[in-house]
Amino acid sequence: MPVMKKATAQGSARLVSWQDRLRVVLVRPRNPLNIGAAARAMLNFGFAELWLVEPYNKAFREARSAVGAAGVLEQARVTSDLASALGDASLVVATSAMRGRADDQVQRMLPEGAHPLRTHLEDRNAALVFGSEKFGLSNDDLSHCDWTLTIPTGQACPSMNLGQAVALCCYEIARHSKAVPRLKTPATAGADERDRITQMLLPMLEAGGFILPESRDSQMRKLRRWVGRLRLAPQDARVFQGMLRQIQWKLDNP
Amino acid sequence: MPVMKKATAQGSARLVSWQDRLRVVLVRPRNPLNIGAAARAMLNFGFAELWLVEPYNKAFREARSAVGAAGVLEQARVTSDLASALGDASLVVATSAMRGRADDQVQRMLPEGAHPLRTHLEDRNAALVFGSEKFGLSNDDLSHCDWTLTIPTGQACPSMNLGQAVALCCYEIARHSKAVPRLKTPATAGADERDRITQMLLPMLEAGGFILPESRDSQMRKLRRWVGRLRLAPQDARVFQGMLRQIQWKLDNP
Repeated sequence: MPVMKKATAQGSARLVSWQDRLRVVLVRPRNPLNIGAAARAMLNFGFAELWLVEPYNKAFREARSAVGAAGVLEQARVTSDLASALGDASLVVATSAMRGRADDQVQRMLPEGAHPLRTHLEDRNAALVFGSEKFGLSNDDLSHCDWTLTIPTGQACPSMNLGQAVALCCYEIARHSKAVPRLKTPATAGADERDRITQMLLPMLEAGGFILPESRDSQMRKLRRWVGRLRLAPQDARVFQGMLRQIQWKLDNP
Repeated sequence: MPVMKKATAQGSARLVSWQDRLRVVLVRPRNPLNIGAAARAMLNFGFAELWLVEPYNKAFREARSAVGAAGVLEQARVTSDLASALGDASLVVATSAMRGRADDQVQRMLPEGAHPLRTHLEDRNAALVFGSEKFGLSNDDLSHCDWTLTIPTGQACPSMNLGQAVALCCYEIARHSKAVPRLKTPATAGADERDRITQMLLPMLEAGGFILPESRDSQMRKLRRWVGRLRLAPQDARVFQGMLRQIQWKLDNP
């Protein structure tokens, strides 16, 4: 396994392990204890990169004082939108407990569902996204994700505590650390490139009347998922952006 | 799988599933949130029987108001000693995170370690014992246990949050719910029978000078483990008790 150096926030360099390629992203967490518990569970299983999207400020401040996970929380990054938290992750996995929700997204169940994510982390970045304690992930959040990792909870009480869900997922990913079947899947563009393409397409499709103002939000989600399903190679993503820039120029200068 | 009726505290009867054969025992839990989280995780994976040994009273009262796990907590039983909480469990499994502690007890690692426990639950009772957040399980607690189930945490932060440890263990036991290789191991006496034998042997060995007052506690633990290692069949345990009663009578009436 190739080991690279990674620049940290302090400017120093350290060895990058496969664990460093995973971002754990908590979307709108409300409870400081859950943030602290998530950070500690990450540390328990060797993960360090925590991102928080729109956490309640009070919750985050209180969580920083959590016992035993200070390192992870001190380096945690806070963003106001999911796209920024995903960065260049070329695989974005949503998480959920068992739920009746009708959804067109691919669902993979733990423990088997951890395999493809672990394999991806062998040489590429990925993000694992957890919704808020009360509302889970929105349809908009889900449109940023490639598929959903589902925890096989029982019918009597399907909804899991956030900290415990993070612990379970980290445990399952970590325990596949030795023998991973190396699937040769082609490299795909990161979440940042895909989001850029979505953002470039949107005004064009609006201008052309393909997307109507009244259904903008749901069409935007469909568009983002469509871009995701293309599984564009990094090179192809750049070519696509070049084409879109040309078309936009033409639209602006008829 | 034979399904029996079990009398509940209310006197009604309901079907007994393999999940009902597991007691989750928390020894001296301090934090109400952890008790609540443990109860919720049990419910997530279909377990219902929770026992608390010497919980801080305040912690238990506060935990009762935990969201989403009211049923488990309302029916939770509180005892002042571990032996009573174990009842007739014929397999008693301690839990721990990775630790350097030198211990002569057999350690089994998750996920494989969940197999023998799950197999046992197919037709017999078992208990899964968790130590307090701060101090874990004492040597005295461990002497009641047959072996230790260890969660493979990393070196950087080996110690797990109590609620998350319960969640992980319940998840692993539950996910083996379908295909369990049926090992034909003979039935063994429950923890209650084993403890009775230990309590009967102790005064005899003290009277005979085999156990000295100054090392009573550690000798008692060794004795309890010795009785555990005998893996007495239920019938043999009763015969043993009969013999001990005779001997004690002879000692009292020389």
